[in-house]
Amino acid sequence: MHVILDLCIVPLGVGVSVSAYVAECHRIIQTTGLKTQLHAYGTNIEGDWDAVMAAVKQCHERVHAMGAPRITTTIKLGTRTDRSQSMADKVQSVHDQLT
Amino acid sequence: MHVILDLCIVPLGVGVSVSAYVAECHRIIQTTGLKTQLHAYGTNIEGDWDAVMAAVKQCHERVHAMGAPRITTTIKLGTRTDRSQSMADKVQSVHDQLT
Amino acid sequence: MHVILDLCIVPLGVGVSVSAYVAECHRIIQTTGLKTQLHAYGTNIEGDWDAVMAAVKQCHERVHAMGAPRITTTIKLGTRTDRSQSMADKVQSVHDQLT
Amino acid sequence: MHVILDLCIVPLGVGVSVSAYVAECHRIIQTTGLKTQLHAYGTNIEGDWDAVMAAVKQCHERVHAMGAPRITTTIKLGTRTDRSQSMADKVQSVHDQLT
Repeated sequence: MHVILDLCIVPLGVGVSVSAYVAECHRIIQTTGLKTQLHAYGTNIEGDWDAVMAAVKQCHERVHAMGAPRITTTIKLGTRTDRSQSMADKVQSVHDQLT
Repeated sequence: MHVILDLCIVPLGVGVSVSAYVAECHRIIQTTGLKTQLHAYGTNIEGDWDAVMAAVKQCHERVHAMGAPRITTTIKLGTRTDRSQSMADKVQSVHDQLT
Repeated sequence: MHVILDLCIVPLGVGVSVSAYVAECHRIIQTTGLKTQLHAYGTNIEGDWDAVMAAVKQCHERVHAMGAPRITTTIKLGTRTDRSQSMADKVQSVHDQLT
Repeated sequence: MHVILDLCIVPLGVGVSVSAYVAECHRIIQTTGLKTQLHAYGTNIEGDWDAVMAAVKQCHERVHAMGAPRITTTIKLGTRTDRSQSMADKVQSVHDQLT
């Protein structure tokens, strides 16, 4: 099952600056070889369900290991069986409507 | 890793009524034996990360099998290493502040 | 426009315990007279769009005033024009499917 | 109060293709003059709280007017009082950590 997922990991108990944690998660996701794209309120990831979810779990484990005692994460994720669609396809289909 | 997760599965392409799909997911989660609580905008689930995530995946697979060609899901999930906390604890700690 | 909204306000930079902030937001929402229901990963609110959104804004302002320098909030919200539906109706329609 | 918001509007009861609705919302937001950035799982918007929230409401009203009887929307939004931060700043601060 292919999934497109928007991941926003928020470490608590480590002050207001969270960019070091977000960057570390970005490194983890890039290491997996999954397609990924950073945006201003999260990171989009695309790939096989199990591989993407394993990456999300690895991010949680790593952020705790970096010292965050608590994490709250928001995820949006989409699957479809009618056709295959990539992250780039999704953005393109909106742009097609805009022209 | 223990997790508390808020799951909101939205099937697309099946009309405006989604309660049959939500109910089926609720049945799946109850079958797993995980602690769960339905609310007006989702279902809270508590347990071991892998077991909870397996339940989420099973819900997606089942909702597709029921005929939904597309699903978009929103998840909030929390983990902590400083102490154990259940869904009931979370609600109780707010109620304690309210009295 | 009637809305059912799930609100999860997360203050950053104030340590790991956030129940005092959640409780204060619950008090604010109850003061508005809007229907509300606390659950383990947020607070559901129901009412007119403008009144509900004013309550959300008031919560952000109050949590900052309590000392949180940064807030990240996750909201799910639903509107429909085909029929009126309350938070209780939503839960009931799932329970009807379960029996 | 300045806000950075991630908006994901999902119309129900209109089939599986939602790009026409997303594109229309993108047009509405661009008309407001607010800074905005489309990504693969939503649209980021930045500006004054009231202006951003007015745009979100206008999107809901327009998507209903286009024929969607039901909408479910997921929003992430951040405010901070310690310093000003733009969408570009957020992405940059992560990139700075990655180099």
